[in-house]
Amino acid sequence: MKDELKSQILAAVEEDLTAIELALNENLKPNLDLVRQIAGHLLFSGGKRFRPLLFLLSSRLCNYEGKLALDVSILFEYLHAATLLHDDVVDQAELRRGRTTAHSIWGTAQTVLTGDFLLACALRRAAEAELVEIIRVIAGITAEMSQGEIDQLEKKEKLDLTEAEYMSIISAKTAVLIQGACKSGAIIAGASEDKKQALADYGFHLGVAFQMADDLLDYTADAQTLGKNPGADLREGKLTLPLILALKRADDKDRAWMEGVILNPDFTDDDFQKLLQKLYLYKGIEDTRSRARHHVEQAKKSLELFDDCMTKQTMIMLSDYTIARNV
Amino acid sequence: MKDELKSQILAAVEEDLTAIELALNENLKPNLDLVRQIAGHLLFSGGKRFRPLLFLLSSRLCNYEGKLALDVSILFEYLHAATLLHDDVVDQAELRRGRTTAHSIWGTAQTVLTGDFLLACALRRAAEAELVEIIRVIAGITAEMSQGEIDQLEKKEKLDLTEAEYMSIISAKTAVLIQGACKSGAIIAGASEDKKQALADYGFHLGVAFQMADDLLDYTADAQTLGKNPGADLREGKLTLPLILALKRADDKDRAWMEGVILNPDFTDDDFQKLLQKLYLYKGIEDTRSRARHHVEQAKKSLELFDDCMTKQTMIMLSDYTIARNV
Repeated sequence: MKDELKSQILAAVEEDLTAIELALNENLKPNLDLVRQIAGHLLFSGGKRFRPLLFLLSSRLCNYEGKLALDVSILFEYLHAATLLHDDVVDQAELRRGRTTAHSIWGTAQTVLTGDFLLACALRRAAEAELVEIIRVIAGITAEMSQGEIDQLEKKEKLDLTEAEYMSIISAKTAVLIQGACKSGAIIAGASEDKKQALADYGFHLGVAFQMADDLLDYTADAQTLGKNPGADLREGKLTLPLILALKRADDKDRAWMEGVILNPDFTDDDFQKLLQKLYLYKGIEDTRSRARHHVEQAKKSLELFDDCMTKQTMIMLSDYTIARNV
Repeated sequence: MKDELKSQILAAVEEDLTAIELALNENLKPNLDLVRQIAGHLLFSGGKRFRPLLFLLSSRLCNYEGKLALDVSILFEYLHAATLLHDDVVDQAELRRGRTTAHSIWGTAQTVLTGDFLLACALRRAAEAELVEIIRVIAGITAEMSQGEIDQLEKKEKLDLTEAEYMSIISAKTAVLIQGACKSGAIIAGASEDKKQALADYGFHLGVAFQMADDLLDYTADAQTLGKNPGADLREGKLTLPLILALKRADDKDRAWMEGVILNPDFTDDDFQKLLQKLYLYKGIEDTRSRARHHVEQAKKSLELFDDCMTKQTMIMLSDYTIARNV
């Protein structure tokens, strides 16, 4: 069912994805060699172009007929890539999508600066489109994401992290950018405030579901699917929802044991397997899944405002796929 | 003469500086505590507010009468602070303006993210003013600065760095931002293309002169005036104009000796003093000064287009002061 959904979505968006890929390639050409290498390393490492695609679909759902959509769409991939580059520096991660990270190859300095450069590229696209409202969205996204990351750093290894704190972290980390891409699609189409809000809601819930699914995968997927070892979040001291829920519900003995694992980044594979059992036992996995499913439903509901059409169907399939990845 | 000039300038811009200071303070209030601390550490460490001031003066020279100038002006201080934070990470500098750098206190991750956050603040201001043309300027500045920094990293310890390469490095590092601030002052005032260009030229030459003066100070000033040890550029493998000119003119023996010092970051104080003598001997100091003076003259010449007034006089004094700092 998962593979069938994927094929259906790919058939529906194939042309868009090809166009996005071409536009991204064209756009990096005029820049300094090294910048192009570093930016390209991340940009062309098998990203799903989820954000530009959602922008395009949103603009189409609002009947945009102008010529700017593709050019504007890629700014959301630039923004995403810029934050990933800075994240890799922040987290000192060595792998991303199964590949060595840019900062491990070129060093911190070059990676930070290439991130800045990609942010500037994103900005330039928006300025060329002369859309102040989209620029306001971008400024908001950047401010929230950087503050959210700082907040997350502060909360590392915080054993009593609440579900509300987790929600605010994943909003800033993932949902606001996807939300901004969808909302901007409505903005470029000159849609009504209602429709802008509906697409913002769609993007927000999609982003939350997407991040929850990602956080689940970090526990349930194997290393090959993941492109890195499972348990990476835990190793970095990041508590995600499955663990937060389980910690809250565990008996004193289990909680003390789990906290011990969290505070010891060198836990063994056996420890990890045992922890995973606790996450199942206390329904941390199950309930995270059900919350993700709830956000998918909310995302779909946000689209009710729009007439039925191919684009809407694709966006509904996309929301289903968000969590189908790991069910 | 230097102190008199300073007093005259300060008298002329005192009110503006107070207003800028207040606006900067007000603006950081609503943010996360830690972000405010890190951003504030740099923002309130005795910067001269040179860029917002130049924006204000430029807008006034073009007879701007709206109410947005102050709010927009501080975005240039944010941009500047954002690049300084990232620069400190890039250079691994421990001191800036005589104070411990943010990354030495809070770490690389927090400093990178606070830089991103300040960039977002700058963007937000521009978007609020609804001035797409200024946003375009900001995007251009950010792109050039980040590419320029990467270029500079690549050229570290390049012994045959040319004067042209040096000019392109300091343009990206310093001049484009000051140029952008001045040009944006003309933009907000809705000035003619002629005047926009004239103020862009003024800012560019001022920026070049300013950076040349800074590079001179790194050789000629004492540690207390500088807020860090002299020779810092050299220690980081950065060749600046005094050295570039001297290397080109030195005889084989002197050049070989100088290159030895450049490639050995642990050179002694004696080595540094001896190098300084070579810079004087081969007129590296003298000719850098004369080039800086030339750019000050160019900056003043760019203002010919404008009628004489208090603001113009202040801007002329400011260009003189750029190099008076170290003559």
